[in-house]
Amino acid sequence: MLVQSMIDTLPADIVVDDPDIVAAYARDQSKFTDGGMPFAVLVPRTTAEVSVCMAAAHRHRVAVVPRGAGSGLSGAANATAGSVVLSLHRMNTIREIDVANRLAVIEPGVITADLRARVSEAGLFYPPDPGSVEFSTVGGNVATNAGGMCCVKYGVTGDFVLGLEVVLADGRVLRTGRRTVKGVAGYDLTHLLVGSEGTLGVITEITVELLAAPRPAQTLVASFPTLDGAGRAVAEITSSDRTPSMLEILDRTTVLAVDRMSKMGIEPGTAALLLVQSDDVDAEVVLASIDSMCSQHGAVDVVVSADQGEAALLLEARRLALPALELLGDWLLDDVAVPRSRVTDLIASIETIAEEAGLTIGVFGHAGDGNLHPTIIYDDADADSRAAAMSAFDAITRRALELGGTITGEHGVGRLKTGWLTIEHDETSMAVQRSVKDALDPSGILNPGAVLR
Amino acid sequence: MLVQSMIDTLPADIVVDDPDIVAAYARDQSKFTDGGMPFAVLVPRTTAEVSVCMAAAHRHRVAVVPRGAGSGLSGAANATAGSVVLSLHRMNTIREIDVANRLAVIEPGVITADLRARVSEAGLFYPPDPGSVEFSTVGGNVATNAGGMCCVKYGVTGDFVLGLEVVLADGRVLRTGRRTVKGVAGYDLTHLLVGSEGTLGVITEITVELLAAPRPAQTLVASFPTLDGAGRAVAEITSSDRTPSMLEILDRTTVLAVDRMSKMGIEPGTAALLLVQSDDVDAEVVLASIDSMCSQHGAVDVVVSADQGEAALLLEARRLALPALELLGDWLLDDVAVPRSRVTDLIASIETIAEEAGLTIGVFGHAGDGNLHPTIIYDDADADSRAAAMSAFDAITRRALELGGTITGEHGVGRLKTGWLTIEHDETSMAVQRSVKDALDPSGILNPGAVLR
Repeated sequence: MLVQSMIDTLPADIVVDDPDIVAAYARDQSKFTDGGMPFAVLVPRTTAEVSVCMAAAHRHRVAVVPRGAGSGLSGAANATAGSVVLSLHRMNTIREIDVANRLAVIEPGVITADLRARVSEAGLFYPPDPGSVEFSTVGGNVATNAGGMCCVKYGVTGDFVLGLEVVLADGRVLRTGRRTVKGVAGYDLTHLLVGSEGTLGVITEITVELLAAPRPAQTLVASFPTLDGAGRAVAEITSSDRTPSMLEILDRTTVLAVDRMSKMGIEPGTAALLLVQSDDVDAEVVLASIDSMCSQHGAVDVVVSADQGEAALLLEARRLALPALELLGDWLLDDVAVPRSRVTDLIASIETIAEEAGLTIGVFGHAGDGNLHPTIIYDDADADSRAAAMSAFDAITRRALELGGTITGEHGVGRLKTGWLTIEHDETSMAVQRSVKDALDPSGILNPGAVLR
Repeated sequence: MLVQSMIDTLPADIVVDDPDIVAAYARDQSKFTDGGMPFAVLVPRTTAEVSVCMAAAHRHRVAVVPRGAGSGLSGAANATAGSVVLSLHRMNTIREIDVANRLAVIEPGVITADLRARVSEAGLFYPPDPGSVEFSTVGGNVATNAGGMCCVKYGVTGDFVLGLEVVLADGRVLRTGRRTVKGVAGYDLTHLLVGSEGTLGVITEITVELLAAPRPAQTLVASFPTLDGAGRAVAEITSSDRTPSMLEILDRTTVLAVDRMSKMGIEPGTAALLLVQSDDVDAEVVLASIDSMCSQHGAVDVVVSADQGEAALLLEARRLALPALELLGDWLLDDVAVPRSRVTDLIASIETIAEEAGLTIGVFGHAGDGNLHPTIIYDDADADSRAAAMSAFDAITRRALELGGTITGEHGVGRLKTGWLTIEHDETSMAVQRSVKDALDPSGILNPGAVLR
């Protein structure tokens, strides 16, 4: 058997074949995605070992599924039958923090929260904060170009990637990018690899840009009796000359679920909740101005706080959004983005979709980026409910496209959205993407079935 | 003849073959770069016409050199003998300014300053400001990923590109990117094309992100009697928690040349001049703190002004840097970037290189980005002087690499730096870049000889 012959060429201490452990590496956190049982899990400790793994896989034409923490929601880290999973979790060293040049060089298996904590000790700031920040890896974040709540002001993971070391499909080691702030030497392979979900290479080292530590944020929470009012407030905030460091929205369904779970006493009749932070030097002024925008658009309850403890309480609703919705049943989390001006149009459409399907769909997300996470509640044991959920998912994704949006704002295509990708991108785009894939992975062994079907 | 047969298939009103005009399109503003006389200049007005041109070139295997304003300094827009130049200057419409979503959709031939002025009327801001801002095109800026003085705070051209329409080598029209703030659907072809210098496709439409109009900047100019002092000040400023919106440096040679030309009475004995701006809400506080950093590191003359007229006078030295150096002889402008902490190491090395070569080399540039423009003064009519200039250029570029830098911070590789590119990038990197080129332009007709030799 090809896979066994390949495995036989590898050092025994980087191969895991215990069936229980292997099974634990078979899937990420996605629902409704294809997958299969991998033959083994490879756990290399060094770039050289990753290179040996890929060279062997290349020779034996074995499919390799690279994996960070497996916390993805699109199936990009789902194994396929007979493949090997290549987990980078043992490569978790922060190799360097260069304070003078504000950059860090790290291995892919470093947990994102750990990197944030370590650079923070040096007075520096690594902004990316996906929802999985406490357990996902920087390598996984880079491979999916992960987002988070910071993006409205600071940008996404890819905006902080200066350079990469990547093992190619045939085992060659590619270095991209630079350690300088600017640089235009040759093609930007760095950002071609960012977000390519392990289909073009295996990331083995990342050079990230860091910022100065931000000021403690001040927080504002506003309840709106109408979705429209919240939408107008978002539009006015994002059109103003000051960018908040957080601008999140929770819709009525989510607010109700959170209030039921937490008994936090959210204003009854709330159609939408906005959560805003500013870490600007004059955050008070910024939030005062946002306060008056919210009030002007009908907010009935606006609370502002500079106290970090109180802020944590105020933000509790956002933290509880998914856990609260989870209590209602099985859930399927979508991730679409629309132009900022269409955020409430999308939420209103989702309300209609939910009503027509007879489903509960809670919506929360990054209003400041137009990036929302409609969360469909269904019964996974019931085939009809599953079908209804998937049909609502399809309707939401298509509606985002109609509104000038994209099928995925930050979760990626994975194995979940390959079908929708061909709706967003025309034949020429798909052909070019395929040709890039073929150029970097001619035998198609890297994460086959992810991104491009 | 193949080129003539190709031309014969095109509408006559998009073909220019008057030899004088054709000759005017043969080269960009670079020195020491290869080139040849093109057969004709194509001047399409629409994407469809660009597509017709490329399809014809593809069928006849004719080399096409895309061109913006031809203001590049690396030879990326130099024609090769028997090629056709494809000038995008007639495609100069700003198609849309979407105030609510802060983006603009424009044709590639729009002059960068015109875009900045137009969006400014809508209270918005397109930051990229390369030195050529008054005459270069946004298409050219995107193709070279142009920089400028804004980058230290706002980033480079590519950071503002949301999406592109590109005509591929065979005439197919590719759309990349999106109109949303975030999006991870498929490979990031947008940023693969940004900075690819017309070797992967012809840009026919650009969707750019816009910001809110910035506050009027306040300005600080500081003279340092030692280069070291200026270096320490730069390091302290760039390590502080506030980023200036401009942080430029002029070395002793440049300062002397400027003072000789302008008689502006720069402090005698100035070893380096720093020019700093802040457009932050508390710019006064920021500049006061930078003022004290400069003084602490030995600045003898620090002038701060909030007055725009006075600021323009203070910045005059930066504006005159190249014109003043030009008065000293023929000039060869380099463009290297080093980690910010190595800026003055690089300047000191360049002083040594100049001394050893018996040449005058003025250095100015974007200290805040570590991106410098050493300007070698030589006599173009004298072969020995030319050789000495090129040898100094080589030494500077290699020194930047030794300091952990890159061979080009913002001007691009073009035809000037293809040799150095293979020093910065190893065989694997070059092979991958070549495979991407081959995937998008299999017959190699797009700007052959630029970027990859």
